[in-house]
Amino acid sequence: MHKSKLAGFVVDCRTDNLQSAAEFWAAALGMQTQPLPGQEGEKYIQLLDPSDRLHIEVQSVEHSSRVHLDIETDDIEAEVKRLEALGARQISSVNTWCVMEAPTGQRFCVVRPESEAFAAQAKQWD
Amino acid sequence: MHKSKLAGFVVDCRTDNLQSAAEFWAAALGMQTQPLPGQEGEKYIQLLDPSDRLHIEVQSVEHSSRVHLDIETDDIEAEVKRLEALGARQISSVNTWCVMEAPTGQRFCVVRPESEAFAAQAKQWD
Repeated sequence: MHKSKLAGFVVDCRTDNLQSAAEFWAAALGMQTQPLPGQEGEKYIQLLDPSDRLHIEVQSVEHSSRVHLDIETDDIEAEVKRLEALGARQISSVNTWCVMEAPTGQRFCVVRPESEAFAAQAKQWD
Repeated sequence: MHKSKLAGFVVDCRTDNLQSAAEFWAAALGMQTQPLPGQEGEKYIQLLDPSDRLHIEVQSVEHSSRVHLDIETDDIEAEVKRLEALGARQISSVNTWCVMEAPTGQRFCVVRPESEAFAAQAKQWD
């Protein structure tokens, strides 16, 4: 048995100026930015959801700009298998997470638990 | 003065089978589907966020599949002006909402209030 839920989303921005991209999205969504520590901070800036429900990041990317969803889980391997059975396919493994593609074409990521609400609200799969 | 906040997101799917697309995303995210009434139901199926925070829809589209964010507001015109001042541009007006593009290239929509949390949680802009 494992658990998963929607963690939030990442605003993928093809930009040389991550700070400026994050400032736009923070102002647009009425959120504060929070720098991430170390090397992660070079590619990602977190946006703080005022309702504390979503984990949101702005990411500097090489591919076209888009928005992708993150699914958080306490068992990446089991969750990837569950999603494959639904018709998604694995694209790549990056550090601790897995990039997948939906049958309808959108890329999304399967990540370790990162939202405050994971323990209380994730759905359990048998 | 007007208010706005992130309403949620729409999973835009280039598909002839909206039902099947919605069923994938509902199962992937651990949510239930809810048909929408009338003509709207031909293009959109709602996904019910178990935490009642987000308004989420799966939409059948002609363009490439993607995910787009919705910003909800009690004054579309004022919110569009605020977002233009931040660097976004208007793409089109559709029924009651406005399609915009961020400086980083992602399309998003400015819509009328649709989440349960709007009154309590929207940010007020002077």
